[in-house]
Amino acid sequence: MSLHKVAIIGSGNWGSAIAKIVGENAQKHSDLFDRQVRMWVFEEQVDGRNLTDIINEKHENVKYLPGVKLPENVIAIPDLIEACQGADLLVFVLPHQFVHRVCTDLKGKLGKNARAISLIKGLAFHDNNISLFTDEIQNTLNVPTAALSGANIADEVAQEMFGETTIGSQTYEEDGELWFKLFNTPYFQVTVIADSVSVQICGALKNVIAVGAGLCDGLNDSPSQRCRYGNNTKAAVIRRGLLEMRKFGKSFFGGVRTETFFQSCGVADLITTCLGGRNRKVSEAFVNSGKSIEELEKEMLNGQKLQGTTTAKEVHEFLKARNMTEDFPLMTTVYRIIYDGEPPETIVRDI
Amino acid sequence: MSLHKVAIIGSGNWGSAIAKIVGENAQKHSDLFDRQVRMWVFEEQVDGRNLTDIINEKHENVKYLPGVKLPENVIAIPDLIEACQGADLLVFVLPHQFVHRVCTDLKGKLGKNARAISLIKGLAFHDNNISLFTDEIQNTLNVPTAALSGANIADEVAQEMFGETTIGSQTYEEDGELWFKLFNTPYFQVTVIADSVSVQICGALKNVIAVGAGLCDGLNDSPSQRCRYGNNTKAAVIRRGLLEMRKFGKSFFGGVRTETFFQSCGVADLITTCLGGRNRKVSEAFVNSGKSIEELEKEMLNGQKLQGTTTAKEVHEFLKARNMTEDFPLMTTVYRIIYDGEPPETIVRDI
Repeated sequence: MSLHKVAIIGSGNWGSAIAKIVGENAQKHSDLFDRQVRMWVFEEQVDGRNLTDIINEKHENVKYLPGVKLPENVIAIPDLIEACQGADLLVFVLPHQFVHRVCTDLKGKLGKNARAISLIKGLAFHDNNISLFTDEIQNTLNVPTAALSGANIADEVAQEMFGETTIGSQTYEEDGELWFKLFNTPYFQVTVIADSVSVQICGALKNVIAVGAGLCDGLNDSPSQRCRYGNNTKAAVIRRGLLEMRKFGKSFFGGVRTETFFQSCGVADLITTCLGGRNRKVSEAFVNSGKSIEELEKEMLNGQKLQGTTTAKEVHEFLKARNMTEDFPLMTTVYRIIYDGEPPETIVRDI
Repeated sequence: MSLHKVAIIGSGNWGSAIAKIVGENAQKHSDLFDRQVRMWVFEEQVDGRNLTDIINEKHENVKYLPGVKLPENVIAIPDLIEACQGADLLVFVLPHQFVHRVCTDLKGKLGKNARAISLIKGLAFHDNNISLFTDEIQNTLNVPTAALSGANIADEVAQEMFGETTIGSQTYEEDGELWFKLFNTPYFQVTVIADSVSVQICGALKNVIAVGAGLCDGLNDSPSQRCRYGNNTKAAVIRRGLLEMRKFGKSFFGGVRTETFFQSCGVADLITTCLGGRNRKVSEAFVNSGKSIEELEKEMLNGQKLQGTTTAKEVHEFLKARNMTEDFPLMTTVYRIIYDGEPPETIVRDI
């Protein structure tokens, strides 16, 4: 049996942390994986030099994961097709807006036995429909595609702080062990399950719930609030959020299993996202500053879009088109507070 | 149909917060409940006066819930039998060490249609066996007994911060609505389910998991730790804890349902307990101070026993007697770190 060749498509903060793990495991399991791991890097200039040249010389992504050494067998390549040449294991870890383009470029260029795994965050909404990025990859490239998500703050993973993650693979029986060996380490413990759908739903919707949790924090901080909101309140929002995430999955997709919500991609990732992170932080500021989300995005995120509120809007349009907003009261209330001027206090009172 | 008469057995911090709610609801649902709610108060002297006299005059439990007005229809009574005279709804909300004595004293003195609800924290361990306080009450007094538990920090409930709770009642179809009306308010939202067993298991075992979460916090704080432990780690411990709580329930009791762990008594209470509270705090100090739990109990808790470590020990003895410690690796590791000198780092590495 020939060795599996791995290509990592993407090289941001999370992509680089994952490249470190994959590079280590390609060395460790030399019976399974080709030693060389190619990483596609969208070329850019850093201090007048190509980022790929810096990565290949210093073994460090100085721009997106500074201070962390990458294994020497991870090779940065600026050309997508060259990076994926001969690879049969494709790790997609790039911002969602690039997925379509990358898949189009790769179409017809992969071997017959190739398979993919998506670490892409979010769901794809278009024309009031949702699709999963695993489906987009699978349908365009005709390769079975798994999904990986969990309570995985990238910098912590890069620093080898202990954590867990979940891989969902519908071809779990054939591919489960391979994905496990590519990603599992003593400090990054992988559980492989069959339900790749919920893995992705949790990864997208947790951000909406985190906006709700941030609203509670803002109300709790605010001395002017007549009603008050404490730890009990925030726990209630997180709990209701977990149930709405599951309900959303079960309502609109097949194969969603309750057990998945007990995995790292479910309850654990939801907890970390509701306690730390930008979604929680910006929505806390939304309550206390009285500014709009657009203003806060400019001030706090350098103009970048906040994932949680963007997803809340997309989910709302999706539900509205189906006359189902009232079936998801927490996510609907988050939308109404952020975009329709409803008072933040309704985050719990209205449910 | 005659009105239901309520007796509250206990008047500590949580008992007083609950008396406020029950008193309000007895007024509100005057078609269902007798207006007068009697609260048994273990008599003690405060500034040279009887606590019951102070409560009945000031409508405030100045010792255990200072600053919060109790409804005037809540009457403090120092005699247990008198407090329960004619009552058909008994709310047990007292420290577990008093339950046996109270039940013995009440035996044979209750009406035929009486029923009870337990807000007692913990499980009863004796001779390497476990029993539920609902069973102890039910078996001694021959009354159907429900359980109430949730993400309910008592002071927050008393201050009417929004929260949720769970009532488990095996006689749910007959009694569910009555319990709902006695406890539900706009700021304290009740869900009634049939699984009273898990409600109590969650309330006891969450403290063991919170000790584990505190160990992570201690490791995360500590600059001397070679391995490091971040938010991903703590989320992993909380998640594994939730699964071990469920496994414990399913292994040793009947009627345990997965859905209960999505209720306030499950995931929500676990989250608040792992983020705040004394179990988390003392075990964090255990890592950083190098002191024993006994020393820390003296210093930090005025000599009171920490629930989480006490329960960890009781659970360990129970599991050991059944040769099942390895089936519950997280709770077993918590025990070994606290009592057997294993390094705190094993909290995640060993699982």
